[in-house]
Amino acid sequence: MNDNLSGLSATEISDGVKVGSFSAEAVVEACLNHIERRDKDVMAWECIKPELSLSQARSVDAEPEKGLLAGVPVGIKDIIATRDMPTGMGSSIYDGYIAPVDATCVARLRSAGAIIVGKTVTCEFAGLTAGKTTNPLDPLRTPGGSSSGSCAAVADGMVPIALGTQTGGSILRPSSYCGIIGFKPSFDTFSLKGVFPAAESLDTLGLHARCIDDIELTVSALLLRGHKMEQQLPRPPVVGLCKTWMWEDAQSESRAAVERAVEAMRAAGANVRDLELPEEFQWLSDVRGVINARERASVMAGEWANNKEQLSEQLQNTIQGGLALNHDEYLDAMYLMETCRARMNQTFDGCDVLLTPAVDGEAPIGLEGTGSPRFQALWTMLHVPTITLPCHVGPSGMPVGIQLVAPYRADNSLLAISRWVSDALSV
Amino acid sequence: MNDNLSGLSATEISDGVKVGSFSAEAVVEACLNHIERRDKDVMAWECIKPELSLSQARSVDAEPEKGLLAGVPVGIKDIIATRDMPTGMGSSIYDGYIAPVDATCVARLRSAGAIIVGKTVTCEFAGLTAGKTTNPLDPLRTPGGSSSGSCAAVADGMVPIALGTQTGGSILRPSSYCGIIGFKPSFDTFSLKGVFPAAESLDTLGLHARCIDDIELTVSALLLRGHKMEQQLPRPPVVGLCKTWMWEDAQSESRAAVERAVEAMRAAGANVRDLELPEEFQWLSDVRGVINARERASVMAGEWANNKEQLSEQLQNTIQGGLALNHDEYLDAMYLMETCRARMNQTFDGCDVLLTPAVDGEAPIGLEGTGSPRFQALWTMLHVPTITLPCHVGPSGMPVGIQLVAPYRADNSLLAISRWVSDALSV
Repeated sequence: MNDNLSGLSATEISDGVKVGSFSAEAVVEACLNHIERRDKDVMAWECIKPELSLSQARSVDAEPEKGLLAGVPVGIKDIIATRDMPTGMGSSIYDGYIAPVDATCVARLRSAGAIIVGKTVTCEFAGLTAGKTTNPLDPLRTPGGSSSGSCAAVADGMVPIALGTQTGGSILRPSSYCGIIGFKPSFDTFSLKGVFPAAESLDTLGLHARCIDDIELTVSALLLRGHKMEQQLPRPPVVGLCKTWMWEDAQSESRAAVERAVEAMRAAGANVRDLELPEEFQWLSDVRGVINARERASVMAGEWANNKEQLSEQLQNTIQGGLALNHDEYLDAMYLMETCRARMNQTFDGCDVLLTPAVDGEAPIGLEGTGSPRFQALWTMLHVPTITLPCHVGPSGMPVGIQLVAPYRADNSLLAISRWVSDALSV
Repeated sequence: MNDNLSGLSATEISDGVKVGSFSAEAVVEACLNHIERRDKDVMAWECIKPELSLSQARSVDAEPEKGLLAGVPVGIKDIIATRDMPTGMGSSIYDGYIAPVDATCVARLRSAGAIIVGKTVTCEFAGLTAGKTTNPLDPLRTPGGSSSGSCAAVADGMVPIALGTQTGGSILRPSSYCGIIGFKPSFDTFSLKGVFPAAESLDTLGLHARCIDDIELTVSALLLRGHKMEQQLPRPPVVGLCKTWMWEDAQSESRAAVERAVEAMRAAGANVRDLELPEEFQWLSDVRGVINARERASVMAGEWANNKEQLSEQLQNTIQGGLALNHDEYLDAMYLMETCRARMNQTFDGCDVLLTPAVDGEAPIGLEGTGSPRFQALWTMLHVPTITLPCHVGPSGMPVGIQLVAPYRADNSLLAISRWVSDALSV
């Protein structure tokens, strides 16, 4: 029985714990067993504390009032502060560091009854230098990054939900590579208190999950909003097919994933039409490096002053590049980005959602790199909510997702449409 | 000689240290002597470490290459992380807490040669519950808050520069109450890495100083931009006199300060004309409490879960209020605020800068409250850069500032115009 429990969704777990079909303790035990069996290969976890998790599960079982996430095991990316487990940032600089207080997201999950199973492997400071995690579907391939461990843990069925962060493509890319759902809400949706920054004008906290219901449930817990499932869409969505200027650079499987989704959505009644972004949006690809490097150099100023030699060469180079930039060049890049953001809503031109490639293609072979963020980073820069849904299998048998993008703050609508699209894709 | 050194500006100090007129050590010694003499009355400091500051000053003296802020003593608001002094947040929850790494602003100041003299008193978590600091001009009056200690230390001549933060009016209000300059740059100008949040959509790091030169110098150090003083204005500025709907609520000294400034600016050749904000901007006053309370409840989630009883009753009430709000009400408030921000630049209607009251009036008597933030908070919500300049003396002999506001990211222009206005006022 325990083994079955570890595959349940967050929604099924909290429902089951609430009505007494099984205990939170049994769920956590199943999840820990799964981790013990599989994590020597996947290496998704930086730290787990089985006794602590089990005792927290028993507390949830003893509570007469159950929260939205009663008994739901979750994984926390290791740049997010926890008061009872180290927060290592994927760097020796923070070896053994214990934060004084839980991050807001962690505190909210706990108070909704979730069980923090452990901290998941992150790229060094949520950047590009990979951690130890492998792709659960093929240990020779990257799981993507930087939320590598959170994504792999959910994909492997160790936990139904895990927290990630996205500054370029750190939630959506691994989610596509591992065949699960990755959700980056509108910038500013969830508090970043207790989350180590990477680039402050871009950093967004989000979720890895295996179903839309679980994302909606967790969002409700994080925002302390009343929870009810979104109703059915009143009509099939109007979808803008947005290939972007990078379309020809995508591998064929990524284009095929989008084309397959167009067919399925049309078959289910959606109005899908081509949509082009204004030409100046192409410049976003050019200025991304400027913004990233300059802000990265900024957030790392303390570590740079005192612990430079403990940073990877790759990160040192990024910071050095950021320090060498002229400040006015950064301000120009910000101005362009802010101008595009301001134009973004009208760009939808009546479409409810945009359909666009999620990734270049399947997860690349090798564990040093984590793949290209270009197809995700564009939308992160625009602050709009974005989600990847599993859709297609590539030539090597690896999953390839699609990406859906909604207007700023239209997160609820994005999730409702995503459920409709998931249904359309699985027919 | 030492006593004279403690009254110098940051610009004079760094110039003097560079050419060898005096040592950084002598400057810091003078500053520590001043603090020892005066701080039993002013109580601006939460923590000073004389030996540490002096040894850092000696290091600066020994360096052949001097930074922009060589030997400049600075005060750091005690919600900003320092690796060698405790960061107490004005709360017993963080008693003795030592951050693992300096905040970005602290690291940047240090690497420019500034000497961190100590941590300055803050209201509890940069909110409304006052610390122990008194107004250096009248110990029976509030210095304002929440950057109380930073402001009082600069006003008393203990240090030429101190870091503050503003979420409502926490930099400009105390600066007006104490008769110095307070500068809140455009939202997002300085990194908040290592700064404890109060309301994430509003929090801005800024400066207390006694002259515009020092602000420009410190901004250059914080942003790692090449430093040259702004040239003279090409022509006198076009000034929008923006009384706002709160004008009649201001005390007569605050209106008199603005009127005096209008006269002086006109006499110096400025074109001053009336400017009204669009009517819906008045709603900003109504939604401010919603945004503040909801975001405050969010950033404090960890402390609320584990240390609630250590929070002041006032802060507990704010958080409780935020938790009780409907999330959609918060989103509506955010939508209104974001809409006003988007309209703000066109609202200037050809004016280079707006002139508006800084405060209700003189610093109130009593040390429990810190005064009303309404005249400052409006502009904080709009993300625009804003500055207060000393201008007037009220009926009780206490200073009253004016406030100048520039378009988003026009910070350099705001400082150049402020220098022009300071000159006009002192004629």
